[in-house]
Amino acid sequence: MIANTPKPPYIAAIFTSMRTNIEEGYEQINELLCKELGGFEGYLGHETFRDKNGFGINVSYWKDMESLKRWRDNTLHQKAQELGKEKWYKNYKLRICTVEMDYKFEK
Amino acid sequence: MIANTPKPPYIAAIFTSMRTNIEEGYEQINELLCKELGGFEGYLGHETFRDKNGFGINVSYWKDMESLKRWRDNTLHQKAQELGKEKWYKNYKLRICTVEMDYKFEK
Repeated sequence: MIANTPKPPYIAAIFTSMRTNIEEGYEQINELLCKELGGFEGYLGHETFRDKNGFGINVSYWKDMESLKRWRDNTLHQKAQELGKEKWYKNYKLRICTVEMDYKFEK
Repeated sequence: MIANTPKPPYIAAIFTSMRTNIEEGYEQINELLCKELGGFEGYLGHETFRDKNGFGINVSYWKDMESLKRWRDNTLHQKAQELGKEKWYKNYKLRICTVEMDYKFEK
C-alpha cells in the first residue's frame, strides 16, 4: 500500500539492501520491529519490497529528523542493525532525505 | 543493484504506484524511457521493484532539481506520464526529496 503521509516537508529513509542467505532470526525481528514501530512517535508509515534474488528496498517516512534519530537509537532497532551487519545483509545503502513536495494520482 | 550515487546532497524521486491490469504499451515505453535516461544529463541511477499484485516502487536519483525538471518535461516522458494516468496506473504517489546524507555498508 502507498503510505498515507501528511503534507511535506517530512523525512524519508530509503534503505536499499542485498540479503545474505542467512534466514536465522530475520523474520522474527522484523515482526518485532513492526510492532515497535506501530506506536512509535513520529513514524508515518513505510513501503517495502524484496525480490527473489534478495535485493530489496524499504522506504520509511518520519515526521522529522528527531523521530528518525530516536528510532536509530531504539534498543531493539540497535540490536537489529547489529545483527543485520553480522548476518542478514551483504551490503546496503541508507539515504536520509527531506521530502520537499509530493503529488498524488488516483482514479 | 544499489545505485552508485555521489556524495549528498542530490535529489531522489520516489514513485510508488499500483498498476491496472492493462499491459498494452507498458514494457515498450519502459524500454524507451530507459534508453533515453542512459544519456540524460544529471541522471544518477535508479532502483526499482514491482510485486505480483502490481504494487511497485521506483526511486530515481538526480544531480539537482533542474535535471529532474528537464526529465519531467522530456517529450517521451510526458507521453509516458499521460498514458500512465490513462491506462497503466490505478494510483500513484510521487515524492521529490533532497538526499541529505547517506551511509553505505559492504561486507
